[in-house]
Amino acid sequence: MATTKIPAKRADAQRSIAAILDAATESLSRNPEASVSEIAKAAGVGRVTLYGHFPSRAELVDAAFAHAIEAGHAALDTVDLTGDPRQALARLIDSSWLLVDRFRSLLVAAQSVLPPGRIRALHAGPMERVQQLVERGQAENVFRTDLPVSWLVGTMHSVMHSAADEINAGRLSTDKAADCITATVLAAFTPPGRPVPALSDLA
Amino acid sequence: MATTKIPAKRADAQRSIAAILDAATESLSRNPEASVSEIAKAAGVGRVTLYGHFPSRAELVDAAFAHAIEAGHAALDTVDLTGDPRQALARLIDSSWLLVDRFRSLLVAAQSVLPPGRIRALHAGPMERVQQLVERGQAENVFRTDLPVSWLVGTMHSVMHSAADEINAGRLSTDKAADCITATVLAAFTPPGRPVPALSDLA
Repeated sequence: MATTKIPAKRADAQRSIAAILDAATESLSRNPEASVSEIAKAAGVGRVTLYGHFPSRAELVDAAFAHAIEAGHAALDTVDLTGDPRQALARLIDSSWLLVDRFRSLLVAAQSVLPPGRIRALHAGPMERVQQLVERGQAENVFRTDLPVSWLVGTMHSVMHSAADEINAGRLSTDKAADCITATVLAAFTPPGRPVPALSDLA
Repeated sequence: MATTKIPAKRADAQRSIAAILDAATESLSRNPEASVSEIAKAAGVGRVTLYGHFPSRAELVDAAFAHAIEAGHAALDTVDLTGDPRQALARLIDSSWLLVDRFRSLLVAAQSVLPPGRIRALHAGPMERVQQLVERGQAENVFRTDLPVSWLVGTMHSVMHSAADEINAGRLSTDKAADCITATVLAAFTPPGRPVPALSDLA
């Protein structure tokens, strides 16, 4: 009957989409230039089915990137953001960096087909988390208030992505990245006249 | 004769290339999505001639971006980089920002067809200038030495481009950008334990 057939079809489509997104995330995280054919093969679907859901490679990359960010955003729920805003920020950077580093190749894929504004827009969830912490830090007089909140949030975003670029270019090692990001972002958030924190102060 | 004809042909090609690069820089600085046809028309050459020199739009954008950076790099020769490294850095940021802002639309065009690594590679000249200043500031114990020089140079690069992104997104006004960049970069370069400079200290 039509009433049972349509939901079954929809469930099939949902399963296809989920398999495609998982395969795209996985394939692009290994090779930023993974082709649509490779991704269809890894997902166990035909190219026609894949193109039925994602009409272009750019749309597929966009969806896979959004998928990875959503999963990462959920994973960051476990980070303790209470207490001293600087220490909370250092914990958030440590955990966020693990995700950025894990999806570094997917980020390259996204950067090569999506404009920077779209990449930042896809980070809306994680950036709202940063924004709340920045606002609390400003209210507690620990982060600088002479620069706009959106600017400070954007600075953290670009410094994290800069670390990914530096690793890709062979100028930075993965194990040093989190410390470089934390030291830089904490310094950038410190109010004028106050001393820049040493990383050891936050241990 | 062949010996005189070839140089004449070469001179013609040189003139064509120069006209195409000027037109591409100009057109893409107004509209990051300017088409190859528009650029050919503005340069007063045919599409076939343009494609003879630049086989793809990406190659044309790459060349126009390189052309703009080269001109900008030459313009920065007039910036006084002597004296207190913080004040020298503030002057360099002010002058560099005028260029980034002027070519903001061309940067968007470049970001949509070139990977971040290529964009940074095209900035090799300007970044070497920053690197020399960072090294001097470190030697004079004014900039932090606990982070690699390449990291500090990359931080300045990404914070400047972040400002362009923020303006494009409508979150920052052009007149506030230079102060945001200078405040952020100077804080990021300050050694741990030292006070973050206020912008007014550098006037």
